[in-house]
Amino acid sequence: MEDLVFERGADALTIRDVAGRAGCSTTIVSHYFRTKLEMLVFTHKGVRARAEALLNDAVENKSGLLTTMAALLPATRERQKDWNTWFAFWGMTPEDPRVTLEWHQDSSQAHSLFERLAIVGQKSGEVHPALDPGVAASMIKVIMNGISSLWAQDRTRWTAVEQQKLLKVMLKNAGLSQG
Amino acid sequence: MEDLVFERGADALTIRDVAGRAGCSTTIVSHYFRTKLEMLVFTHKGVRARAEALLNDAVENKSGLLTTMAALLPATRERQKDWNTWFAFWGMTPEDPRVTLEWHQDSSQAHSLFERLAIVGQKSGEVHPALDPGVAASMIKVIMNGISSLWAQDRTRWTAVEQQKLLKVMLKNAGLSQG
Repeated sequence: MEDLVFERGADALTIRDVAGRAGCSTTIVSHYFRTKLEMLVFTHKGVRARAEALLNDAVENKSGLLTTMAALLPATRERQKDWNTWFAFWGMTPEDPRVTLEWHQDSSQAHSLFERLAIVGQKSGEVHPALDPGVAASMIKVIMNGISSLWAQDRTRWTAVEQQKLLKVMLKNAGLSQG
Repeated sequence: MEDLVFERGADALTIRDVAGRAGCSTTIVSHYFRTKLEMLVFTHKGVRARAEALLNDAVENKSGLLTTMAALLPATRERQKDWNTWFAFWGMTPEDPRVTLEWHQDSSQAHSLFERLAIVGQKSGEVHPALDPGVAASMIKVIMNGISSLWAQDRTRWTAVEQQKLLKVMLKNAGLSQG
């Protein structure tokens, strides 16, 4: 479904289009999803699971903050699709409890993973030892989401190389990539 | 229309709903807008004009970077509506030339205004004199959009006070708010 969101926007998530893409009947799709919102929440959960797996691996393998963040940026087609789903989801309305819950799970999971990554970085000397890991996690998310938003609006200018250049400068400034 | 986007998401921008909100017939609305996309582009233009006016004023009156950015963050109901429209717009697909054009105008206008704001800041001593104004402008946008994205996902936690606290730290780290 993230293919549909990427190619034609969140609007394209109709039961008919999803069925067409999956090559099955609308009856099957509507057995699982009743609304566009349910399909978007499902898509978001998939995107989130991928990012969380990547971050978990990074914590386990001590991959380092700069490497991990570079791997999350919208520098490849796969990641760009993920970011498009995130943007579409940020612009949703908080009225629906399923959206609020999914927002909450996303931001709290990401926060705790970034926090653990910051602590690993402090041990390796990549992250400034005086930084509070919670504040570090917020700054990491601001830098990640912010650079991705530049790509969102100017996709030819913000190439992988330009994204990484800005990432390096901003991590260094914030004390998140020393030495 | 940004009210509709905020309350019910970009999906709510149907000709019927806009007509209902404006208290006029669907015939009148469909005279101006043929599609949801046209309505969203129109809404985005309005949001952009407001932000650009605020930035222009800041450059003219030398309001300072910290003050100006604090005024742009989603700290009031009005700004929160604007940010919701931006998020919805970032998640759109680049296929349509009207979207690409509006993205381009938004990012190039904002970039040049932030660049001018950085130069004003260098004269007043707020911004580090060694910073390239173009790079400064990109960093300003990353910090702005990034903090707003934290609010997007956790609207109770990221209050106006919390947004400004993080803004101050990150501007200072980046050399954008000295002294």
